[in-house]
Amino acid sequence: MTHFNITAIGNAIVDVLAKVDETFISNNNLQKGGMTLIDEDQAEAIYSNMPPAIEKSGGSAANTVAGLVSLGGSAAFIGKVKNDQLGAIFTHDLKSLGVHYTTTPSQNGLSTARCLISVTSDAQRTMATFLGATKEITKNDIDEEIIENSQVIYLEGYLWDEQNAKDAMREAVRLALKHGREIALSLSDSFCVTRHRTEFLELIKNSVDIVFANEAEVTELFNNSNVIESAKELSKICKVAAITLGSQGSLIISDDGVYVIEAGKNLNVVDTTGAGDLYASGFLFGYTQGYSLDECGRIATIAASEIIQHMGARPEVSLADLK
Amino acid sequence: MTHFNITAIGNAIVDVLAKVDETFISNNNLQKGGMTLIDEDQAEAIYSNMPPAIEKSGGSAANTVAGLVSLGGSAAFIGKVKNDQLGAIFTHDLKSLGVHYTTTPSQNGLSTARCLISVTSDAQRTMATFLGATKEITKNDIDEEIIENSQVIYLEGYLWDEQNAKDAMREAVRLALKHGREIALSLSDSFCVTRHRTEFLELIKNSVDIVFANEAEVTELFNNSNVIESAKELSKICKVAAITLGSQGSLIISDDGVYVIEAGKNLNVVDTTGAGDLYASGFLFGYTQGYSLDECGRIATIAASEIIQHMGARPEVSLADLK
Repeated sequence: MTHFNITAIGNAIVDVLAKVDETFISNNNLQKGGMTLIDEDQAEAIYSNMPPAIEKSGGSAANTVAGLVSLGGSAAFIGKVKNDQLGAIFTHDLKSLGVHYTTTPSQNGLSTARCLISVTSDAQRTMATFLGATKEITKNDIDEEIIENSQVIYLEGYLWDEQNAKDAMREAVRLALKHGREIALSLSDSFCVTRHRTEFLELIKNSVDIVFANEAEVTELFNNSNVIESAKELSKICKVAAITLGSQGSLIISDDGVYVIEAGKNLNVVDTTGAGDLYASGFLFGYTQGYSLDECGRIATIAASEIIQHMGARPEVSLADLK
Repeated sequence: MTHFNITAIGNAIVDVLAKVDETFISNNNLQKGGMTLIDEDQAEAIYSNMPPAIEKSGGSAANTVAGLVSLGGSAAFIGKVKNDQLGAIFTHDLKSLGVHYTTTPSQNGLSTARCLISVTSDAQRTMATFLGATKEITKNDIDEEIIENSQVIYLEGYLWDEQNAKDAMREAVRLALKHGREIALSLSDSFCVTRHRTEFLELIKNSVDIVFANEAEVTELFNNSNVIESAKELSKICKVAAITLGSQGSLIISDDGVYVIEAGKNLNVVDTTGAGDLYASGFLFGYTQGYSLDECGRIATIAASEIIQHMGARPEVSLADLK
């Protein structure tokens, strides 16, 4: 089998993106800047209130592999769509990049997941996610041969919201440890951290090498509003802690030391959807090439800077040309 | 019933847009700059070769009503989707603009139409269209009350490619004439003109007030490579001939005289998809407000200039703010 720099396990989602007024967020009971889980009826109700939208493949970990491959890396993805039109779109958009994606689509039940993304004029994105077919993933979808042939297994924290998905993640962790592979985890969202704090801490301590978090997520994880203290706490229980700080840049902490990475400059920020996902793309590309952590942070910043300058969370140009 | 500035009858299509190399066009046997009709198997084959794409509602006449409403006008649309995910997207994107759209979706048969749009680095768009459910339209879908309450009935030339759709168009023409409404026609595509030259000429002579065409279409209609001569020929058989000339601007010819309209200046042209459709939006907005033909041309140019500066054929900002 081909060798992969990373295999990512995450929710297979098509994004529905629209520019909205601030009032849209409050009128639809959304948490600005956060991710709210919704059922199909809520999805219909919010969608019917949305302005005209565009559809673009998304999903946090799937965005990360799309970015990594655009940088020149190799990747596999594990996540569940239904055998429907949106599932075909999601599948096409990954496979056409050269991502190895063979998870069997579900034939019945809920439709392919979609994330309604409301982008306000401050470029902030607010998400409402109907998980749909992603809930059908089981540990049988975790292909041992793929895990064995990957340098790093990348886990999306969002998957902790569903028992089946959590079981699949635990299976991926078991297989990664069995084959001596490294494990990376994205904390995904501060509300997601609130929901799963204890399990995340236990998982990180026992199994995870690299953790990606933003300020809200890492402070929530340690219930400590000081981001530097929280980041240091995190670095004590994993190998590398990569903390994104929005327009302030990012921090990478490991036994080697603390690296302060500057943010991109002179950016025309349009939509922050996918900023964290693409930071992980760049970091993991550099990491799996054996680059220094400083260099990993530099490439991470380039990838994140591209994604926030247009609508949607998949690169619009070859990231390899930017690094 | 509400009064509408225009009612448009056209193919209900979701666009699948991707940036491609020139070789993609030849490798997939597409006519650069044109529109090729394809079946579902060909759509699958071409799509599988396409890079990652975005999905955005399209359809020539539907784009025109979206633009007209964005300018502040009122519109209805008649066109057929299937009751599937892409049909729901198309319907949402029109209704959320305030367009009156009540055509019953088909429940069985082919899926909602999609147009695979390949955008090359010269911003030219090449289209391959799977007509799908649009073929299910019949004359029963033409609502007399809507026609009666519309100032102008706008017909998309592309619909001449299917017998059912053509019958529906002829019914719309009959009802428009019965109620003394004006009729506008877009010639759509030069290959479409080749296929239907005789019928288009007959239709224009007998029923059409306003004709929209680009250089390739009007010269093809009269089999005369001189665009000025062809435009004058056209103006003899209708009330207003609006001829778009790409970066050269446009010509509007009527009994009142000939108006030469300058093209937009300092444009960052990204994707010409929808340029003609949005020209018609602006023209018909002005026309139904009773503006001078010169002013209609000016607004048409503003609308077309917005659409070619981003991917896709639906406005990304309120056009009312630009006029």
